[in-house]
Amino acid sequence: MSEHRFKTVAVVGAGLVGLGWAIVFARSGLKVSIFDGSEEIRNGAIARLRRSLEDMEQYGLVENVGDIVQRFHVVDTLSEAVKDADYIQESVLERVNVKTAVSREIALAMRSNAICGSSTSGIPGSEFTADIPSRDRFLVVHPVNPPHLIPLVELVAAPWTDASIVPLVRQEMERMGQSPIAVNSEIPGFVLNRLQGALLNEAWALYAEGTASLEDIDTAVSRGLGRRWSFMGPFETIDLNAPGGIADYAQRLAPLYHSIAESRRPKQWPADVVQRAELDRRSVLAEEDLAKRSIWRDQRLMALNAAFLTQARARQHGSSEA
Amino acid sequence: MSEHRFKTVAVVGAGLVGLGWAIVFARSGLKVSIFDGSEEIRNGAIARLRRSLEDMEQYGLVENVGDIVQRFHVVDTLSEAVKDADYIQESVLERVNVKTAVSREIALAMRSNAICGSSTSGIPGSEFTADIPSRDRFLVVHPVNPPHLIPLVELVAAPWTDASIVPLVRQEMERMGQSPIAVNSEIPGFVLNRLQGALLNEAWALYAEGTASLEDIDTAVSRGLGRRWSFMGPFETIDLNAPGGIADYAQRLAPLYHSIAESRRPKQWPADVVQRAELDRRSVLAEEDLAKRSIWRDQRLMALNAAFLTQARARQHGSSEA
Repeated sequence: MSEHRFKTVAVVGAGLVGLGWAIVFARSGLKVSIFDGSEEIRNGAIARLRRSLEDMEQYGLVENVGDIVQRFHVVDTLSEAVKDADYIQESVLERVNVKTAVSREIALAMRSNAICGSSTSGIPGSEFTADIPSRDRFLVVHPVNPPHLIPLVELVAAPWTDASIVPLVRQEMERMGQSPIAVNSEIPGFVLNRLQGALLNEAWALYAEGTASLEDIDTAVSRGLGRRWSFMGPFETIDLNAPGGIADYAQRLAPLYHSIAESRRPKQWPADVVQRAELDRRSVLAEEDLAKRSIWRDQRLMALNAAFLTQARARQHGSSEA
Repeated sequence: MSEHRFKTVAVVGAGLVGLGWAIVFARSGLKVSIFDGSEEIRNGAIARLRRSLEDMEQYGLVENVGDIVQRFHVVDTLSEAVKDADYIQESVLERVNVKTAVSREIALAMRSNAICGSSTSGIPGSEFTADIPSRDRFLVVHPVNPPHLIPLVELVAAPWTDASIVPLVRQEMERMGQSPIAVNSEIPGFVLNRLQGALLNEAWALYAEGTASLEDIDTAVSRGLGRRWSFMGPFETIDLNAPGGIADYAQRLAPLYHSIAESRRPKQWPADVVQRAELDRRSVLAEEDLAKRSIWRDQRLMALNAAFLTQARARQHGSSEA
């Protein structure tokens, strides 16, 4: 498949997600054309990219920021951005009509063998690519926020996406250091947000009924479950939590987990409970400090990535010595 | 409350969990009496503790292993272990009749103002402390496996637990570097396993219906959700994922999460699906390698703790300079 290797990519929509993607592409050596409908965003893009890369450099996550920045080209029209691209990442506003219009514009401007992935987290691709040209070249390529600091990517084909596309994009994403997974149907929430949603729904129920405080529920994850889940998934976790592995674990604990599921019925997050949670959160983090805390989050993620990188290198070193 | 500060503690049941607790106590300077009903386990306990501590020392998580080991005293009877203890951690077999018998024995041997916490992950305290003496001094103190590498601890009072006990144990656990939370009712699974169970139930459903492979579902957590959750909880995560905070997030996304919940009905983990998962896991990890992989898990946890410790020291250093 080497003739399909991406060399030039385009980013359409240069908000937080689009710029995160631009970093993913450029740090792995690709040329990146960037377009956004807003002139203000276009004008500020390079400076923002440079700042993010300099932050990453401080954590040892990239080198030669100047070289990476050279690979970015902000252009003034969508067609200029996409015309030479092997791959286009679309990250525009999360609305069906906007995605439809932009996808059509991309389809008309892109090379016939190019591929376009949408960053949408919630809209199935078939809702905005059904009636556009070259719809077999479109799929969903959903990252986690921020894409340059969290490697997971969900690949979701529409019914008409060419069968070769998901394997090809998967291979290219792996080459870039991302962690792609294949979602085999256009299920609402895909995999990641369904898993997050299941945990959140239980968290809201526990909070609503007063079983634990909001802060303590957060601690159960940040000091408990999340420690293992930062490097192994839920199935591997339970596989190691019974002497005989996952089937042994299921034998022992499936009845408990079934009773937990039985004890809940689907429920909207109640408005008064959301309001109480808002007050709880604002008592520990003022609204004007949300942006600052997001910077803290990204710093924690960069430090985590740096630590994982160091560990991976140490393991490689260890095994090459062994 | 300084007169209640724990100085001498007892560990009853010296399996993996009990020995993990022994390390938690001894590394924070407490004297630890250790008892197990099995002579073989008693005879091997000190060597196992020393090995674990030496592993931790390699990651910079403890110093002076020799001094810590000096604080362990393996004794031949339960009453000798608990008679001088301010606090007793019971970690015996997860069966109501066993827990009841051992709790009674502890109650009869312990000082009148001592406190006894049970490591049970699934049995409400009231099921095994209802008819024992001094039942107001008993509660559930549920750790995550392994307790010396994952700080979360769930504190669950029985209806008759003295009201001063949870706050006091919470304070003492914090002093030891653990992260205690208060679970305000004896709900099955407490908080941690309910959250884990909610995510697992969705993971099994996605796997059963073929939406993604077992490995890809694991990746969605280990390379996605778990990265953020290793240092912040689910509520803080969504608080930072909408410009206006948690209420803004709920406004935007509650309908999606409600529809996810609506799409599922409580279901046993089906036997054939569990069997398929067992085959999937055994194809990447042979049964005879499960124990080796658990050692890998603990090494990853130690490396993660070491990285968090380094980061915390750097932040402290940074703020003292500012």
